[in-house]
Amino acid sequence: MIDPTRSVLLTDLYQLTMLQGYVQQGLEDTAVFEFFARKLPEQRGFLVAAGLEQVLQFLEDLHFTAAELEWLASTGKFSGDFLDHLKALRFRGDVHAMAEGTVFFGDEPILRVTAPLPQAQLVESRLINLLHFQTLIASKAARCVLAAPGKFLVDFGFRRAHGAEAGLAAARASYLAGFAGTSTVAAGPLFGIPTFGTMAHSFVQAHDDEETAFADFAAANPQAVVLLIDTYDTEAAARKVVMLEPRLRQRGIIVKGVRIDSGDLAEHARKVRRILDQGGLREVTIFASSSIDEYLLREYADRRVPIDGYGIGTHLDTSSDAPYFDCAYKLQEYAGRPRRKRSEGKATWPGRKQVYRRYGSDGVMLNDVVTAEHDVHEDRPLLQAVMRDGRRLSPPPSLAAIREYAAQELASLPQALRELRREPPYPVLISEALRNLADSLDARQQ
Amino acid sequence: MIDPTRSVLLTDLYQLTMLQGYVQQGLEDTAVFEFFARKLPEQRGFLVAAGLEQVLQFLEDLHFTAAELEWLASTGKFSGDFLDHLKALRFRGDVHAMAEGTVFFGDEPILRVTAPLPQAQLVESRLINLLHFQTLIASKAARCVLAAPGKFLVDFGFRRAHGAEAGLAAARASYLAGFAGTSTVAAGPLFGIPTFGTMAHSFVQAHDDEETAFADFAAANPQAVVLLIDTYDTEAAARKVVMLEPRLRQRGIIVKGVRIDSGDLAEHARKVRRILDQGGLREVTIFASSSIDEYLLREYADRRVPIDGYGIGTHLDTSSDAPYFDCAYKLQEYAGRPRRKRSEGKATWPGRKQVYRRYGSDGVMLNDVVTAEHDVHEDRPLLQAVMRDGRRLSPPPSLAAIREYAAQELASLPQALRELRREPPYPVLISEALRNLADSLDARQQ
Repeated sequence: MIDPTRSVLLTDLYQLTMLQGYVQQGLEDTAVFEFFARKLPEQRGFLVAAGLEQVLQFLEDLHFTAAELEWLASTGKFSGDFLDHLKALRFRGDVHAMAEGTVFFGDEPILRVTAPLPQAQLVESRLINLLHFQTLIASKAARCVLAAPGKFLVDFGFRRAHGAEAGLAAARASYLAGFAGTSTVAAGPLFGIPTFGTMAHSFVQAHDDEETAFADFAAANPQAVVLLIDTYDTEAAARKVVMLEPRLRQRGIIVKGVRIDSGDLAEHARKVRRILDQGGLREVTIFASSSIDEYLLREYADRRVPIDGYGIGTHLDTSSDAPYFDCAYKLQEYAGRPRRKRSEGKATWPGRKQVYRRYGSDGVMLNDVVTAEHDVHEDRPLLQAVMRDGRRLSPPPSLAAIREYAAQELASLPQALRELRREPPYPVLISEALRNLADSLDARQQ
Repeated sequence: MIDPTRSVLLTDLYQLTMLQGYVQQGLEDTAVFEFFARKLPEQRGFLVAAGLEQVLQFLEDLHFTAAELEWLASTGKFSGDFLDHLKALRFRGDVHAMAEGTVFFGDEPILRVTAPLPQAQLVESRLINLLHFQTLIASKAARCVLAAPGKFLVDFGFRRAHGAEAGLAAARASYLAGFAGTSTVAAGPLFGIPTFGTMAHSFVQAHDDEETAFADFAAANPQAVVLLIDTYDTEAAARKVVMLEPRLRQRGIIVKGVRIDSGDLAEHARKVRRILDQGGLREVTIFASSSIDEYLLREYADRRVPIDGYGIGTHLDTSSDAPYFDCAYKLQEYAGRPRRKRSEGKATWPGRKQVYRRYGSDGVMLNDVVTAEHDVHEDRPLLQAVMRDGRRLSPPPSLAAIREYAAQELASLPQALRELRREPPYPVLISEALRNLADSLDARQQ
């Protein structure tokens, strides 16, 4: 069996052909790889690190099963000696990383792997696959959180997420960035994330009239009655809720909210708020969904639209305005010597690095410095040891703890970034020590 | 255990709260839901259906495990009676669908589920999740195939795909749309897709010089020597390949190609082609990667850039210019009566539908007609029965057969669509029968 979520074959073929070269030539010295964003997408002023927990699970679990080795043998591309080598292969390296929830920028490594070259190389594809996506979504979610202060935000994106893993990882990443929860049920048992839901149009349509649908739904789910009111006529449905509410209350059922999912959400929300308020339902909240993103959230916050919470789906789970960011996992040192890729437009800063962050007296971030690991500064170092010889140095933090830390990180952002502006850009300085190292490598190489 | 790829909890919470309502109220009559694209993204003139096989597997497998029921019970949201009902729940419905690889357009259902309401409702979230993503990628891949006639295209996108399932599904969807294969190893054993790979910059960097790296890689992988030549100086590396090749040939090792992964790919390719040709290596192919998409492929085809194959990663696996399309799975009939959602901007055509396609004498598509199922036309009907009472009507077609069929579909596209133009749009006609049905429902409802 090939496990489609855990298989070591979740990698690119060239990792295995290269490994065969490394093993055959005895290139098994210590290698240092770093994962970083080359530059931020145009639409992002900062990123939020996420996915480390899944990376560490993957590294701890790394091994070739009999079925995997058998399939590799069947391709005829690999020698028996090499397959024997793979059979014994485990990840025994060190990992340094920024904690999940940390804000970061271009050119800053957020994870460093130090391991024998074949091990460090093999894990590249899945490691990028895991870190890139959760970071992408945590960053998008953080923007939503900043754009809608005090609002109740729920991930609604599973159906449009790129597969089940994407849907689950998006639920996790958005929750750690400050969302209240998700509609994806499996994220409850798998990650302990609060799950929320209302009702769909089909429930209303399956009934002969809307009032019966509302009454039936409330009776069946008395704990969390949020009624969808836009199937036919939004304001008419709001008036039906006002009529229905006293009867439900008599039966001990509390209507918590209504949901609007189409049309001009702001306009409907104002009218519905008025209808509910005039009907004495001031406590009933308005929840909105349908093509929500941080740009709309900010506009509605500015216009004080009376919507209390939002279900954010497609734009969150696909990070639709920036569905990827330019990132890489690159060799920075081999056998004790710093290395540097100089390909046009893709050159990297060499050697093991650290990122230091300086804060003002008000606790707001002032600037970051990327430097060589040995060039110790007094400011806050962002990369910390999390795994040694393939074992974690401490148990995983709870998702609640990560979420709290991420909130502190967002609170320490400069005002421009909190307002989702990209100007002025946050200062990331490359230290003189690092520049000198790069120059000396360039002078020596070829 | 909650299986993160197969769990029935890969759904939205409201499906379960609605189900509780349906079951409690005895709303278990036959429901008909259809999946369709509301409209095409601006960047797409057509879509290619994909993901049906995974949907059918999901429906066949649908059940609640003891662990899932236990977790649901622990939430306190569901009654014991309802959980007992879920314990026995299986999918026993019918499915009609367009074959994978079929070209389709907005307003056309590509899948119809006919089943007792709770069953048809429960499967919505995962069914959309599966169909939307593979269709998204098959459509993007088809554009690449059309833009690069005769070129060897390989999916390189795993690392930037949104999780492992997305990477695997993208390998499958792009292969069925005409790609030669993928670099994602696990797609080999899981789907029988050919896997390809070259080498990475780190392999070159781990060696003290580029020539030794080339020789080592060739010796370790004599069957498929494609050398990456852009780590330091692309043209200098091409000359090294010319120098090295005779020595490798003496040892029986054939250099198949070189890969360029940075800079101006067209300019490098012309220079490298000249160096290889002058060195007598006319048979050595040039393979390029780095930010490839269909727009670049078309430009290079027009300019006759001497590149033989492309590795297409991020833009393919995230469908970066259109990372989602607006699609829905909507109730069209309940208990024998057609239903229609009228929400602003989201109204649907009611009832069970069929799509007919008319062809010219040259085999090119002329137009489609969407109509009510009972309104039988003489043209080719695109929706076919594939599952009855929860069982497939025939074994799954091979991926090779789907790929061949998809190639025929692309060959029958009107010239404008083959050239990736959106004008003139392909004619999709809504039949009079369907318009009349919608009007009569609107007149009756409220």
